[in-house]
Amino acid sequence: MPPKQIRLNALDMYCMGCTPGIWTHPADETHRKLTLGYWTDMAQTLERGLFESIFIADIFGVYDVYGGNADAAFRHAVEFPVYDPMVLVPAMAMVTENLGFGITGTLSYEPPFSFARRCSTLDHLTGGRFAWNIVTGYLASAARAFGKPDQLPHDERYAMAEEFMGIVYRLWEESWDADAVVRDKQANRFADPDKIRSVSHQGTYFQVEARHLCEPSPQRTPVLFQAGASKRGRAFAAKHAECVFISGLTRPMVAEIVKDIRQQAASFGRDPDSVLIYTAFSAVTGPDEKAAKERYEDYRRHVNLEGTLALFGGYSGIDFSGVDLDLPLHYVESNAIQTFVEGFTSAAPEREWTLREIGEFLGIGGFAPIAVGDPTSLADEMALWMDETGIDGFNLIYSVSPQDVNDFVDLVIPELQRRGLYRTTYPEGETMREKLYGSTQRSLRADHPGAKYRSSVSGGEERNT
Amino acid sequence: MPPKQIRLNALDMYCMGCTPGIWTHPADETHRKLTLGYWTDMAQTLERGLFESIFIADIFGVYDVYGGNADAAFRHAVEFPVYDPMVLVPAMAMVTENLGFGITGTLSYEPPFSFARRCSTLDHLTGGRFAWNIVTGYLASAARAFGKPDQLPHDERYAMAEEFMGIVYRLWEESWDADAVVRDKQANRFADPDKIRSVSHQGTYFQVEARHLCEPSPQRTPVLFQAGASKRGRAFAAKHAECVFISGLTRPMVAEIVKDIRQQAASFGRDPDSVLIYTAFSAVTGPDEKAAKERYEDYRRHVNLEGTLALFGGYSGIDFSGVDLDLPLHYVESNAIQTFVEGFTSAAPEREWTLREIGEFLGIGGFAPIAVGDPTSLADEMALWMDETGIDGFNLIYSVSPQDVNDFVDLVIPELQRRGLYRTTYPEGETMREKLYGSTQRSLRADHPGAKYRSSVSGGEERNT
Repeated sequence: MPPKQIRLNALDMYCMGCTPGIWTHPADETHRKLTLGYWTDMAQTLERGLFESIFIADIFGVYDVYGGNADAAFRHAVEFPVYDPMVLVPAMAMVTENLGFGITGTLSYEPPFSFARRCSTLDHLTGGRFAWNIVTGYLASAARAFGKPDQLPHDERYAMAEEFMGIVYRLWEESWDADAVVRDKQANRFADPDKIRSVSHQGTYFQVEARHLCEPSPQRTPVLFQAGASKRGRAFAAKHAECVFISGLTRPMVAEIVKDIRQQAASFGRDPDSVLIYTAFSAVTGPDEKAAKERYEDYRRHVNLEGTLALFGGYSGIDFSGVDLDLPLHYVESNAIQTFVEGFTSAAPEREWTLREIGEFLGIGGFAPIAVGDPTSLADEMALWMDETGIDGFNLIYSVSPQDVNDFVDLVIPELQRRGLYRTTYPEGETMREKLYGSTQRSLRADHPGAKYRSSVSGGEERNT
Repeated sequence: MPPKQIRLNALDMYCMGCTPGIWTHPADETHRKLTLGYWTDMAQTLERGLFESIFIADIFGVYDVYGGNADAAFRHAVEFPVYDPMVLVPAMAMVTENLGFGITGTLSYEPPFSFARRCSTLDHLTGGRFAWNIVTGYLASAARAFGKPDQLPHDERYAMAEEFMGIVYRLWEESWDADAVVRDKQANRFADPDKIRSVSHQGTYFQVEARHLCEPSPQRTPVLFQAGASKRGRAFAAKHAECVFISGLTRPMVAEIVKDIRQQAASFGRDPDSVLIYTAFSAVTGPDEKAAKERYEDYRRHVNLEGTLALFGGYSGIDFSGVDLDLPLHYVESNAIQTFVEGFTSAAPEREWTLREIGEFLGIGGFAPIAVGDPTSLADEMALWMDETGIDGFNLIYSVSPQDVNDFVDLVIPELQRRGLYRTTYPEGETMREKLYGSTQRSLRADHPGAKYRSSVSGGEERNT
């Protein structure tokens, strides 16, 4: 049997570098993100590397837990400033033909009706290459920006997310029959009113009474991404996501997560293998081992510890500012901190870690494994991850952009291709979903929960509301 | 004194043609709006014609007053389907250097925090060529789509709009000092936390507690457009808008509106001439008078009466479906209808109009005057409007796109230039506001109400919240 092909996505975010401090590296070009050239260059590079998609993360709010304020985040540009990633899509679509665009949309703060319209517009304009990364948000500062005293409790956020999904599925799948648009100039008839129906939803968090404003886009429902790491988030992903993005420092940790997601997907009646799982992967390469290792050491010198701790503070809600940086962490009397570092220390139980060491180690790549080496050793490493975890591929995280992405495409991709581990051309199909699942799969798979809302071609009348 | 130069904008909307029925014309290409090529072609044509901006209208909701349902709107594609215009901007910006982008944003349905971020993102990506057309919406069906039982009453919508403006001014003008961003790689310092401040707003309609997520964009506050025709809408425009878009069928009607807006602007402490006023203008041209008139008659045959009445129904809230099409309208016993047609019949008092005649007449160009003729007669007509109304220019409305725009640019613009009525090159200045007001005016004028929120370069501390 030929080896399982590696699937690749690339992570970016509409902020200065994703790694605190790394924007100070001389080769960093993330300041160019305020011009379209950064994005069109990146999209073209990724298409040259036959990537499935660019995945653009997003947050609302600021990292203001560290020291009780956002000073460290502002000083070190920790995911701040951060801009609207949705509007980047058409420019990147103009210069590519096959790349997908997986853009984060935070459903806690988007009205479902206008959000569904924006997604459909982008799916039309990209010829069906749009994906939505579903997030609920995790920063209290974001809630306050939207006029709420605080976030909903974690599990309730997912209850709200379920309700939101039900609405947008109905707008995308049910509101227009496939043959609603006639577009007959001779007959003076654009659409058949009987085949466009109103979605009526009176729920706990949302009320919507509307027809979807857009005729069906190539994919109708965009390809659905999810990256929630919590127990509840993982269940949500297993139910709704077509592409799940996970992270873990070791292969056993990742294998465990993969197994759990596939089991849960099966429990929702989905083919577990239809849930495509990508683990975060950070790669620093070079023409040979020595060059790669020197580059990594050079990067490490630019990582900013205070910024990294501000980032962790936002993730976890823990203020690390009072913690002795050089005390082995098991001496720190804080249950929250013990829980936070547990996942990390369980991956490296053989030694005592201090907060400084963890910060410096995780500074590059975060909770993703970081592979440093020449193309041969990186390909070895990626093959190991594929073999031992059950993942479908990787979500590639750069440290210095675009240098790391360029080198990965130019050096590592050819090595993967030589081994038969990576495709040499894009799959058939116009839309992203066809490229993911095969050229007969333009809309949601029949076993996906959104498919039950699909309107039939002709028999729409009985569902009129 | 040389004649006042004509300023030109071009109206479009992200739907099939703006005139009901005209999408059936063989030359109509508005079905191409689902691809980026329509928009990049249009942007390049307008830039070739030295237009100030493309103005993209928008609505949420459907025209469901006529006959008590939306059937006519669906059948005849009356501003439906309608897509998100914001995401078009970067693609058009990629292929142009000087054109501005005036995009409609409906503040009744946008959270101010994320809306401000989207606008700032677009202002950055366009190098300061973004303008926001401020609307409150007018369709009850839109309110229901956003979970509200109905719209706010008309005047209360403007009270909410005032509150919204106060918030976004603060996010754009006050949250970041001009020197907040240091971007010093050597000193490992991106921004000065003391110069980024939180906006705290606890109001009637909105609560916001947040720093703006974007560093100051070239214009900070985008150029502000407004097109409200009501008394309250006009007062709002006189206070907030830098470019006001009006319409009227006759020069005396338009002159009256212009005078009123300038007087009201003065009463708000603004230089009345700094409020730039554009009247809607529909032009059908050709190489000679005969060709132009034949084209107009050809267009008229494609106008759809039922669609037109559905559109008027949405504008006015009046269901015209029961009205005898061929009865002179003063026989119709309906105060609402009498009021609706008043503006129209006062422009042509010499005859009795039926609903069919009004529909057919207004079917092309709506409440804008429609000029039909060769380039000479169109230039004559435009000069007359400039001389007799006090307007600064026109908002050009096409019937068949892109044919009408192409011909206007190729035939009429050169004639206007020959007469010294139109510029032959874009003005100096990188941003749209500099091009409008002169190259020293990058941010809001000092007499604009948004300017009072502006943070100074250094003395921001006293306004910390």
